[in-house]
Amino acid sequence: MPLLINNDEVEQILTMADTLAVLEELYRDIGSGSAVYRPRTDLHTPTTTGLGPDIPGAHYLKSMDGAWPRRQVASIRLTSDVLAYPIQNGLRRRVKIPAAPGNRWLGLVLLFSTANGELLAIMNDGVLQRFRVGATNGIGAKYLARKDARTACILGSGWQAGTQLMALCAVRPLIEDIKVYSPTPGHAEEFAQEMAATLDRPVRAVPSAEEAVEGVDIAVTATNSRQPFFPADWFKPGMHLSSMQRDEATDECFRIADVVVFHTRAKEQNYTSTDLADVERRHGFEIRDHQYPRDLDWNAYPDLGELVTGKIPGRTSDSQRTLFLNSIGVGAQFAAVGHHIYTLARERGLGRELPIDWFVESVHP
Amino acid sequence: MPLLINNDEVEQILTMADTLAVLEELYRDIGSGSAVYRPRTDLHTPTTTGLGPDIPGAHYLKSMDGAWPRRQVASIRLTSDVLAYPIQNGLRRRVKIPAAPGNRWLGLVLLFSTANGELLAIMNDGVLQRFRVGATNGIGAKYLARKDARTACILGSGWQAGTQLMALCAVRPLIEDIKVYSPTPGHAEEFAQEMAATLDRPVRAVPSAEEAVEGVDIAVTATNSRQPFFPADWFKPGMHLSSMQRDEATDECFRIADVVVFHTRAKEQNYTSTDLADVERRHGFEIRDHQYPRDLDWNAYPDLGELVTGKIPGRTSDSQRTLFLNSIGVGAQFAAVGHHIYTLARERGLGRELPIDWFVESVHP
Repeated sequence: MPLLINNDEVEQILTMADTLAVLEELYRDIGSGSAVYRPRTDLHTPTTTGLGPDIPGAHYLKSMDGAWPRRQVASIRLTSDVLAYPIQNGLRRRVKIPAAPGNRWLGLVLLFSTANGELLAIMNDGVLQRFRVGATNGIGAKYLARKDARTACILGSGWQAGTQLMALCAVRPLIEDIKVYSPTPGHAEEFAQEMAATLDRPVRAVPSAEEAVEGVDIAVTATNSRQPFFPADWFKPGMHLSSMQRDEATDECFRIADVVVFHTRAKEQNYTSTDLADVERRHGFEIRDHQYPRDLDWNAYPDLGELVTGKIPGRTSDSQRTLFLNSIGVGAQFAAVGHHIYTLARERGLGRELPIDWFVESVHP
Repeated sequence: MPLLINNDEVEQILTMADTLAVLEELYRDIGSGSAVYRPRTDLHTPTTTGLGPDIPGAHYLKSMDGAWPRRQVASIRLTSDVLAYPIQNGLRRRVKIPAAPGNRWLGLVLLFSTANGELLAIMNDGVLQRFRVGATNGIGAKYLARKDARTACILGSGWQAGTQLMALCAVRPLIEDIKVYSPTPGHAEEFAQEMAATLDRPVRAVPSAEEAVEGVDIAVTATNSRQPFFPADWFKPGMHLSSMQRDEATDECFRIADVVVFHTRAKEQNYTSTDLADVERRHGFEIRDHQYPRDLDWNAYPDLGELVTGKIPGRTSDSQRTLFLNSIGVGAQFAAVGHHIYTLARERGLGRELPIDWFVESVHP
């Protein structure tokens, strides 16, 4: 019987320590070629719902598949997003509108058994998503940051920032001072207070990004930036820079880094309806993500699987600058963490059982 | 509320005439770039279930996405297949094992609204799959076969063969004689009898492929062949050859054809676990589909969208040889036919309503 598992249940089940352990095991299998995934694909089409006639919008159907032989699971993660691009404070922002009934978003993980093909679970992707992004950067830091790292900062204090710090403190327990900067007034303070309690160590808001980065062993960027902003002169010898978006660290950071590791060399593949050209013309705005041109050869960098399996060395001296870029996820993460959640949900009697009859059939092509 | 729609309900709802009409409208939008899809992807990993220790097997997770702005829908079609490769009558065959509980297969279509992102329906893919393959070849024949075609043959009499003939007779109603050949003894006779009743015209079994093809205006190949078998000297002037697999018509057929149209230039993308190499070594057998090398430049041929929108001419004289190859599906077909099924199911009160709460969430990344 497939289990329906919602975000509340995932939140009860999932810990950062487990997510780190499961994903590190996965990356060993990705490094050896045992676990597989395909690049994420995005289909972009017009939408009729939006934030108003003057605001351009689009629907994105994103999906990513992965399979992990060690646990005999495969998964599809999908999101069906309605996006709008309003101008706020003079800047074009990208907003995911909760347009589904009840003002909700839609993101799901479907988990399958590779032993018998059956659907094992359908789960909300939100909480899982947040933990796997944090843990992935955490694994990067485990192999790349100085072992004696004591200070860190984070730029950005949104939904993803919390798990970034949880993962960082799990892999570098000596961290005793964390600075937070957010351009949203008041937000860094609130986040700092919350995280100090969660992490049981000092977390303090600072008034500028520069002040946050000053003197830290590890800098984490967890922003929605669509343009690189982290200059090379913030990137000091010995520092580990852990980035969550393609357009945070400037090209010069990649050039001066002694070790650069990408989460994956795979890039998302976009398929865009020509109908969006009309929307773009009407609004004088290009609906495209990641349009900022980067002077980086994506395929020249090693990936996390290669780092974890020792195919490439991590940090080899305290004075090296190291950079980890986690700008895109891979479907195998959802297979791995999804299966962990499924296993614990079964053990603890959590989730709602659905009839398997609903999802199988007596004919095949 | 999302609708759960099973194969029985699809069978009640879906007609070949409607499938042809909906898909022809879709291909106009594919031809203009309005409707979009991504290439099908397959993840191949080992499986523990199979037909026995001496028989190699694998799990395939296949998926394909598409979106159709005209109806404001997007879809994901997925199959989670357990495959085995037994030797039967001296030949290696590929078998999809009904390994899911209750001896079932698993293939689903998820349908989404691009207006508000919500999940509209989950449906079995089996019946839909069969109709959309038949209708796609039917649209090919509509634009490529002689208008006065009166005779046809089909090589193969399996699950897909019936809809091939239904579609053909819908687009070429003058057809008055149909020959069937199957290498499985007795199967062609049974199929011929059944189809004669369905199509209300003569359908007769013949003892050889050569006899089937002899003198017909339209030849349909609906086999599981893994090696081209249809020689160029069967392909006479004026004939339309409608092929359902990559490896049916020989290279020479492509060379002598006056018009060749592919369903799509997209190719499936395979991601194969290195663990399957062990299975292959153990059994001395390569688990790969479509390994036969073809001397064809896939990108040199026009596609069905270009044919339907008139970007390329179809048949221009009665003496031309025309060839349509429909060897791979596209996700947009499931969005289009799936939405048609969903709309009629709503109208007729068919299907099971599921709580939308199950599939949405109050957080987003």
